[in-house]
Amino acid sequence: MTHRVVRTFDRPAADVVQALAGFGTATVSEAQGRRGLMGPFMRPIYQPVQVAGPAVTVLCQPGDNLMIHASIETCRPGDVLVVTTASESTDGMFGELLAVSCRAHGVAALVIDAGVRDTADLTKMQFPVWARAISAQGTVKATPGSVNVPIVCAGALVNPGDVIVADADGVVVVPRADAADVARLGRERVGREEQTRERLRSGELGLDFYGLRDKLKAMGVEYID
Amino acid sequence: MTHRVVRTFDRPAADVVQALAGFGTATVSEAQGRRGLMGPFMRPIYQPVQVAGPAVTVLCQPGDNLMIHASIETCRPGDVLVVTTASESTDGMFGELLAVSCRAHGVAALVIDAGVRDTADLTKMQFPVWARAISAQGTVKATPGSVNVPIVCAGALVNPGDVIVADADGVVVVPRADAADVARLGRERVGREEQTRERLRSGELGLDFYGLRDKLKAMGVEYID
Amino acid sequence: MTHRVVRTFDRPAADVVQALAGFGTATVSEAQGRRGLMGPFMRPIYQPVQVAGPAVTVLCQPGDNLMIHASIETCRPGDVLVVTTASESTDGMFGELLAVSCRAHGVAALVIDAGVRDTADLTKMQFPVWARAISAQGTVKATPGSVNVPIVCAGALVNPGDVIVADADGVVVVPRADAADVARLGRERVGREEQTRERLRSGELGLDFYGLRDKLKAMGVEYID
Amino acid sequence: MTHRVVRTFDRPAADVVQALAGFGTATVSEAQGRRGLMGPFMRPIYQPVQVAGPAVTVLCQPGDNLMIHASIETCRPGDVLVVTTASESTDGMFGELLAVSCRAHGVAALVIDAGVRDTADLTKMQFPVWARAISAQGTVKATPGSVNVPIVCAGALVNPGDVIVADADGVVVVPRADAADVARLGRERVGREEQTRERLRSGELGLDFYGLRDKLKAMGVEYID
Amino acid sequence: MTHRVVRTFDRPAADVVQALAGFGTATVSEAQGRRGLMGPFMRPIYQPVQVAGPAVTVLCQPGDNLMIHASIETCRPGDVLVVTTASESTDGMFGELLAVSCRAHGVAALVIDAGVRDTADLTKMQFPVWARAISAQGTVKATPGSVNVPIVCAGALVNPGDVIVADADGVVVVPRADAADVARLGRERVGREEQTRERLRSGELGLDFYGLRDKLKAMGVEYID
Amino acid sequence: MTHRVVRTFDRPAADVVQALAGFGTATVSEAQGRRGLMGPFMRPIYQPVQVAGPAVTVLCQPGDNLMIHASIETCRPGDVLVVTTASESTDGMFGELLAVSCRAHGVAALVIDAGVRDTADLTKMQFPVWARAISAQGTVKATPGSVNVPIVCAGALVNPGDVIVADADGVVVVPRADAADVARLGRERVGREEQTRERLRSGELGLDFYGLRDKLKAMGVEYID
Repeated sequence: MTHRVVRTFDRPAADVVQALAGFGTATVSEAQGRRGLMGPFMRPIYQPVQVAGPAVTVLCQPGDNLMIHASIETCRPGDVLVVTTASESTDGMFGELLAVSCRAHGVAALVIDAGVRDTADLTKMQFPVWARAISAQGTVKATPGSVNVPIVCAGALVNPGDVIVADADGVVVVPRADAADVARLGRERVGREEQTRERLRSGELGLDFYGLRDKLKAMGVEYID
Repeated sequence: MTHRVVRTFDRPAADVVQALAGFGTATVSEAQGRRGLMGPFMRPIYQPVQVAGPAVTVLCQPGDNLMIHASIETCRPGDVLVVTTASESTDGMFGELLAVSCRAHGVAALVIDAGVRDTADLTKMQFPVWARAISAQGTVKATPGSVNVPIVCAGALVNPGDVIVADADGVVVVPRADAADVARLGRERVGREEQTRERLRSGELGLDFYGLRDKLKAMGVEYID
Repeated sequence: MTHRVVRTFDRPAADVVQALAGFGTATVSEAQGRRGLMGPFMRPIYQPVQVAGPAVTVLCQPGDNLMIHASIETCRPGDVLVVTTASESTDGMFGELLAVSCRAHGVAALVIDAGVRDTADLTKMQFPVWARAISAQGTVKATPGSVNVPIVCAGALVNPGDVIVADADGVVVVPRADAADVARLGRERVGREEQTRERLRSGELGLDFYGLRDKLKAMGVEYID
Repeated sequence: MTHRVVRTFDRPAADVVQALAGFGTATVSEAQGRRGLMGPFMRPIYQPVQVAGPAVTVLCQPGDNLMIHASIETCRPGDVLVVTTASESTDGMFGELLAVSCRAHGVAALVIDAGVRDTADLTKMQFPVWARAISAQGTVKATPGSVNVPIVCAGALVNPGDVIVADADGVVVVPRADAADVARLGRERVGREEQTRERLRSGELGLDFYGLRDKLKAMGVEYID
Repeated sequence: MTHRVVRTFDRPAADVVQALAGFGTATVSEAQGRRGLMGPFMRPIYQPVQVAGPAVTVLCQPGDNLMIHASIETCRPGDVLVVTTASESTDGMFGELLAVSCRAHGVAALVIDAGVRDTADLTKMQFPVWARAISAQGTVKATPGSVNVPIVCAGALVNPGDVIVADADGVVVVPRADAADVARLGRERVGREEQTRERLRSGELGLDFYGLRDKLKAMGVEYID
Repeated sequence: MTHRVVRTFDRPAADVVQALAGFGTATVSEAQGRRGLMGPFMRPIYQPVQVAGPAVTVLCQPGDNLMIHASIETCRPGDVLVVTTASESTDGMFGELLAVSCRAHGVAALVIDAGVRDTADLTKMQFPVWARAISAQGTVKATPGSVNVPIVCAGALVNPGDVIVADADGVVVVPRADAADVARLGRERVGREEQTRERLRSGELGLDFYGLRDKLKAMGVEYID
């Protein structure tokens, strides 16, 4: 039950990450059975933005960003830093200097269930961040935590090496072992949706398209003119 | 007390809707006695945006968008879809496919006391949405609700055919029977404000303009240098 | 314990305000020991935006903007209006007409722990506002309050003449007596950060730069490969 | 669109109110199709407590209890005062003196989507209150509102004369026209539940009792040992 | 701008504290012009409970209770410990062991804008606590803060030596310099209320008692039968 | 990625559960390194109450309690039912009838990150519940979920067979593999605390006892008289 920094872990295949990067969070979460979404309070600091990459996980004491510093050397280009705190916090644990360091090591984005600061600079740098809060409140470097252990971030379980997909709608976690399947199911879903889109565009009703009229009748919903 | 879909209801005159569309929510809510505003958590997903139209109302089970599908065929061009849930929810009940369907039927906008997804696509389509939340969380089509019954949406009572006015400041509901009067009062208000604006711009104080100095004195407010 | 309007108070030196205007809220709050920040729910209504100026403080009854009107004649060009309410409120106490009046008197910005309306117009005018909420809900002019007394706004103590610094990250209050020192410490901090930035950009780790490896070891954090 | 005090309105039959008073809010809301519940933030200030009675409705400006005073003379013994504000507020609009006045006029309880104070005294008096907040913050008597008009209180529509049922679980509104039917359906539901209770007590599973095993199979839920 | 522990400060006269202890928070806050109340999220962990005493103020880093330990030796019998954090936190910074220590030094109660734990034990000890949250989450002792400096706690400004009055309705702060006046005004208020209570109890309406009928008429409120 | 009901899983040794039942959540969470606590919004519906037992985990669609019914036959006497929803919900998914069924199967308690109803009856039955909300809002039985899979409940990861410890301060999860160690560390902690308690009771300061004076000096905290 001591704290630890795990330096190595398995990452998903690059082509699977690449495939998932092509889908939005809605498609990905549907493809894996409506699971793995972080809470809707996780918002991008600027838009448009879309990202996918393997998770490097960080568990911090609230108000303390020591373990973010400890995590950087475990990152590889394309990784997404995923940070949570032992209890809820909005402090600005990450700012422009850490983003410069992240970029130097190829980190693709930050997902943080806490606060972020220097958001004007981060926007200029186009360093993507999804956060619970924007706050200039500084933090200390005084208390241990862990890196690359399983964490709960914004209500979702994240293991190091899981794929993080994030866009304008929020953030979803794809377990590493499921990533290839989810990519395949996502492709199928996108294909089906294209057909649906055309029929809806032509004026066909979802009610007919999905066969919902009988369902409504069976449920006893009355139609009144 | 069964659920029902009401197919027909009275809409306000087109010129009245047109007139209300020219005012912001602040003007409209003032004109009707500071009533009818939805809560400030109802935010547009993109800006600038401004809309007015008759309400088609939808009552759903949380996490279930079946009745949104049932509502589309009751819509006419220019209508605003107003969706609420039986209890609070942030699930993404509406996305790009439903927006395509809405657009095919002329629906002007969506107001939803729940979540919305595919917001990047909706922004590209310029389909206006005011929502409580942005969330990729999908929903089911399993439980009945009602269409075009009186609903409470984001704290405001909405009857089908009421006029919805929405802009950067939020959403306001104008009862159909009051719409013509509110449009007239709005026009008068805008006229008066133009005069006020000029005097304030020239440096005159609201304190003098509104005759508030005597009021402050009567209330016992002391001036100290 | 009566209410009062204080017409005169000491302002900080113009060059000190000018110096603080060059720093973001993160730098300023760090420079004064991580103190003085308002809560992260205080958000700018548009971006980019950055402002610094002496505070004119206003205490209102919730749902009542009488004292904002009373405050305008105590403002000098460059001042920042800081408004709080006796209890939490999101009502739109300030809109475009008040902004026109503010501009006529040189007020630089508004910071309000309540709601604001006409945000599309305020954005067009480029009148900077940081607020708890955006709401078209109107207010009355019926109950007394005070102007230029010490207030608590969004969790921060503000005295008239304190320097308000606000940017994309939020709002910070610098006590007037500390303003020159904070400006100097901010300058030093910015200098140090420039050096840090270069080293981080070159790939050096914060872990090494800040000497955190020994700290982690002393805390018993284990490294695992 | 002026404000008004409506002195007379139809109340439900006493025996219907009496019948509804025998059921909890869960039974009543189920009996009317899972509708009419106020939000779960409406909590009783003491327990145990259970009440039913016709609604007298009050619409106030936030921070202003003038219209509560105006409402008392429209109350009859057994009525429940239902108070809402034009926008969200937690101010203590009602305290011990108003409860003494209510009791003198036979008012059975208070339901208020705002704050209440003197809660220790109200508990001693056993005057039942359901409120959003407990707060000593006082209010003014400066701004008009309405009495016995339709209001939205804690997310539920309330018309004067509707039956309010409240207990440890919260508050539900029964439209006056539905009250007799709901009382009958509640009785039937309670009867059915007594049988269910016995079978569940004996160890029978809801899964079997409600015939859910086939449903799970049809949905594709897998059983794993 | 360094952190500091101030060991000595002026306390209010014992008889003034004693007098304020006889009033509830509603009376005290009204007596000082509806000011000084902490937010309604500050709740007692058990009831009934009522307390008054001079404030010892503590400013902590969130998730760190070091400065609570530092504050105890500055306490005198009857003091109330008032704790705030640099940013919002719900961690359990105070538990049974600290309460034992507090009691050994005569501390009368704790008011904390953060979390508290061991609440079952604290209730058994009858050690009064008002807190934002109940949480078992532990804290560290790693970061400096200050003792007996002005702080903002739950939205209220507290200086060391101010009188804290707390009861079932929440917490109010009386500035030391105003304490004697507030006690006198509280006594007068209680006297007046006793007369009001008798008249309301006899059935007289507040509407008549406070002369509000003319006010309603002047405001244009219509009466409808 | 289909839904499933896992019927069998390993439970911790009875004596370990028994040992953990003797400690509060504060002791248990400290013993395992300040980890595993659910959020502070999880509150018991009555007090005093304290419970420990192996977790049976349930994942439901919000507003749907089908899977709670499916979970009962996987429970053994002493188990604690732990229920979460795919997205945030306050609906009353569990009431008196389900509690009767639970009791018939020996279920010791319910922990639910959603709502509960019939709380007066549950209190009479002394069936312990920790919940996010109390709400009479009913739910449907229409959408599949899973039983005894890993879930995130109120921010904490729960695997079936983990030990749930819950008391007046909230809920903590002990991983099954760590349970024996945590029980041992908890015993040691309680022993140490007894000694600390005596010294604090005698007036010794935590400042001296924990050796914090030097720490404060090293941090540069100034003492001022």
